[in-house]
Amino acid sequence: MGGEWTDRLGEVELRIESRRLGDDGGPTLRVGPAGRGLEWLRFDCFDKNPHWHLDPTGRDEVQPLVGSPDPISEVFGMLRSDLPGLLERAGAPSTALASLRSTDLARRLLEAERRMRHRPACLDELDIHRLRQRRSAKWHLHPDDILPAWVAEMDFPVAASIQDELRRFVESSDLGYPLESEDTGLPRVFSERMQERFDWSPDPRRVELLSEVVQGLFIALEAFTEKGEGAIVQTPIYPPFLAAVAETGRRLVENRMIRGGERLEFDLDGLADRIDPGTRILLLCNPHNPSGRVMTQEELDRLAALVLEHDLLVVSDEIHADLVFEGRRHIPFASLGPEIARRTITLTSTSKAFNIPGLRCAIAHFGDARLQARFNQLHPVHTRGGIGLLGIYASIAAWRWGQPWLDEVVPYLQANRDFVRERLAERIPEIGFDAPESTYLAWLDCAALPIEGSPASFFLRNGGIALSGGRRFGGGGDQHVRLNFATSRPILSEAIDRMAKALGR
Amino acid sequence: MGGEWTDRLGEVELRIESRRLGDDGGPTLRVGPAGRGLEWLRFDCFDKNPHWHLDPTGRDEVQPLVGSPDPISEVFGMLRSDLPGLLERAGAPSTALASLRSTDLARRLLEAERRMRHRPACLDELDIHRLRQRRSAKWHLHPDDILPAWVAEMDFPVAASIQDELRRFVESSDLGYPLESEDTGLPRVFSERMQERFDWSPDPRRVELLSEVVQGLFIALEAFTEKGEGAIVQTPIYPPFLAAVAETGRRLVENRMIRGGERLEFDLDGLADRIDPGTRILLLCNPHNPSGRVMTQEELDRLAALVLEHDLLVVSDEIHADLVFEGRRHIPFASLGPEIARRTITLTSTSKAFNIPGLRCAIAHFGDARLQARFNQLHPVHTRGGIGLLGIYASIAAWRWGQPWLDEVVPYLQANRDFVRERLAERIPEIGFDAPESTYLAWLDCAALPIEGSPASFFLRNGGIALSGGRRFGGGGDQHVRLNFATSRPILSEAIDRMAKALGR
Repeated sequence: MGGEWTDRLGEVELRIESRRLGDDGGPTLRVGPAGRGLEWLRFDCFDKNPHWHLDPTGRDEVQPLVGSPDPISEVFGMLRSDLPGLLERAGAPSTALASLRSTDLARRLLEAERRMRHRPACLDELDIHRLRQRRSAKWHLHPDDILPAWVAEMDFPVAASIQDELRRFVESSDLGYPLESEDTGLPRVFSERMQERFDWSPDPRRVELLSEVVQGLFIALEAFTEKGEGAIVQTPIYPPFLAAVAETGRRLVENRMIRGGERLEFDLDGLADRIDPGTRILLLCNPHNPSGRVMTQEELDRLAALVLEHDLLVVSDEIHADLVFEGRRHIPFASLGPEIARRTITLTSTSKAFNIPGLRCAIAHFGDARLQARFNQLHPVHTRGGIGLLGIYASIAAWRWGQPWLDEVVPYLQANRDFVRERLAERIPEIGFDAPESTYLAWLDCAALPIEGSPASFFLRNGGIALSGGRRFGGGGDQHVRLNFATSRPILSEAIDRMAKALGR
Repeated sequence: MGGEWTDRLGEVELRIESRRLGDDGGPTLRVGPAGRGLEWLRFDCFDKNPHWHLDPTGRDEVQPLVGSPDPISEVFGMLRSDLPGLLERAGAPSTALASLRSTDLARRLLEAERRMRHRPACLDELDIHRLRQRRSAKWHLHPDDILPAWVAEMDFPVAASIQDELRRFVESSDLGYPLESEDTGLPRVFSERMQERFDWSPDPRRVELLSEVVQGLFIALEAFTEKGEGAIVQTPIYPPFLAAVAETGRRLVENRMIRGGERLEFDLDGLADRIDPGTRILLLCNPHNPSGRVMTQEELDRLAALVLEHDLLVVSDEIHADLVFEGRRHIPFASLGPEIARRTITLTSTSKAFNIPGLRCAIAHFGDARLQARFNQLHPVHTRGGIGLLGIYASIAAWRWGQPWLDEVVPYLQANRDFVRERLAERIPEIGFDAPESTYLAWLDCAALPIEGSPASFFLRNGGIALSGGRRFGGGGDQHVRLNFATSRPILSEAIDRMAKALGR
């Protein structure tokens, strides 16, 4: 814990700090005039006996915060419902109250709440022995002499706001049936999040909850295409895209990415030639896994024109949207215009950016009510399976409160990306590597290395490092491996050392 | 916490107690000769610095328990791998070591582990203000002046063994993708549990994980019947059975239960008449919701004969199997014989008996590989959606370690059932009530009460108590309500008071 955060709302200053008092402690919010020792309100959201003070530097009336297992939610409930009234009772001058009127109070209180729920993320100090005790697949599949850098989850601790929320459910044995999805608030929180981050306003009524994005891919193919109809996939690609097309008996219309100068490019000219009359759907992955490419406005516009020209539906997996690096910007496909929106199913989740895939909760958003109805008719909620309470509320916590955590994680990932580039250039310069513009995945071309057969098997056998083999990604990825760099710098450094060691360096 | 538990393995005594030492504490396992102050081994699985002692009453060599976030699992790992070796090092006489050989050591150590993970369940002391803060549907759907006694989840805290396991995942941010289902161990633990409790040995390879039992009902109907084919349902019934038949376009073959002397009876004579050539499947619910009936061996044998005679498939929902009261015994339908097994799909879950439905994890077991293949072909894993990490490991914890908790809960529920019977007889004797043989659900016949329209609406409006309305259960349940009695005696007492108050009593 640590750090301090302040904001000024007119004449009213909000200050958040973390306090430890012996065995107790937690975040404190002070509200007072700027730059003086005076306080009008203080909220001590401590582990034990959380409480608040009215006029703490004056008559100091203390009240417990006991209305909820989550004192921060109680505090911000009070502030949202009547901050001016509280300030008046605390003796703040009327000029201070009046000065609040010109501020976007709701927005600023939300930001303060996020800060109060945040704790620094300690990304550089992972304990590999603790990671090896995890029971998720990444750390549990291989023996302890193997370093895992394969499946796409991060080694970092989850955001404090998510962890605290999960603790509240576990500590109170609140593990029963969730409300109907719209009543949980998640569809609305999803919509607010898309608006805030991507200037896109999806309709919460057009949301279905899924277990994960892959479930949406499979069901959309079944719902919107017939066996034998063509589905465009830009390869190399996250393997479940190929599995979805193959296992549902649809026809793969492969649009292989091509080499640009410094990166893989989407081959839009080639795509125009490849679309035939039986091609019905485009399975888009943007930001793109495994290349880490983020489509530009121009690329998206060209793709949208093709989609309209050939009357295609689009399933757009945007699960990496929150993991975009400096200089790039995520543009939701459905935000390109009303004609595009009404033929687009957007799949996303908090699971990737906030590192909670094991909680199984994802969103399908339909740009058109008829698409949603057809999806639900073929695979109704009961057939798809219920979504867990913890996945739903962890997703709400992530999207509502998790941004300060993400603001630490994304720059760290970007620095890891640069570290991978530099270290590989130094140790294994034969590897071809286009630095990703998003994700935490490095798509490494090993064709110039003296390796027979699968490079992933080679590195596993000779270096004790588990990478994702490129063959399953299609698109000529046989000589590639995918390296997951969402870990601490020391562990990432060891990963590259192991790759070098496998090559006798 | 509290309580002490001992077991004798030959000359070796195991003693478990809970110790509080200031701010620290936790369970301790002592191993020594029976009835003397001597100890050979002591394991202090404390919250802080868990450790163990070799020869604590002699040379006292102390070692930390740091190999796992779960010190109890580390302790029993050591004991299982070499209890005799540890005792020898601790100076135990060779007669003590030899005396272990005639014991079923694996079984007894598992029982000791269960006891060490157990904490008394405090069923009678629920805080209604804390319950009202829950966000699961039961407590969150209605305003605070309504007492909820509808959806089938319990108000009790979950077993300590489950809560501690969930804490370990949350505290270590272990929230990533789970292993493949067989690698998690859950199918094997399911099989061991069925063997231990019901003398039934299902094949773990014939297990599929589902989100919940209802998902299995829907998919089984789609996989094993055609539209228009008949599905037998014994009504009144848990409403999703009727929804599954209706929404999949199958034909309901209703087998309404009939009044026996002191209970509702399954109408097996009537069923024989009602099966027509287009009847393909029996959707069994045993123990039966809402009646709480547990089918006897004789009833099951008669039903099995009809199933064979008419070449039916059976989907058997046995989710209440662990909640059977004194004098009754649960018999899995698939255990009736090989001819029955190969046409039976058993659906079950830890979610009901261990009160974790929000974690979304259930089991489908297929008595025949071809049934499993057909189920998977129609709705493959990816279409069904992935199962969450916490649901899987909470289910393992429940079935492996949760029995001591259940041994407290089931008698409490049985006493609640008797309390409902007595209190209703006293306050609202017009209500017809056949005491259930299992479940925590009271199916109350309100036909003799002066109520117009739906009794559930009446009690909600006039008594502020939310019961499940009988109409949705079919089978002439319109004048019934279902009361959930899985709560503390004081809250249950208030529930009945509210029903009486609605009637002006």
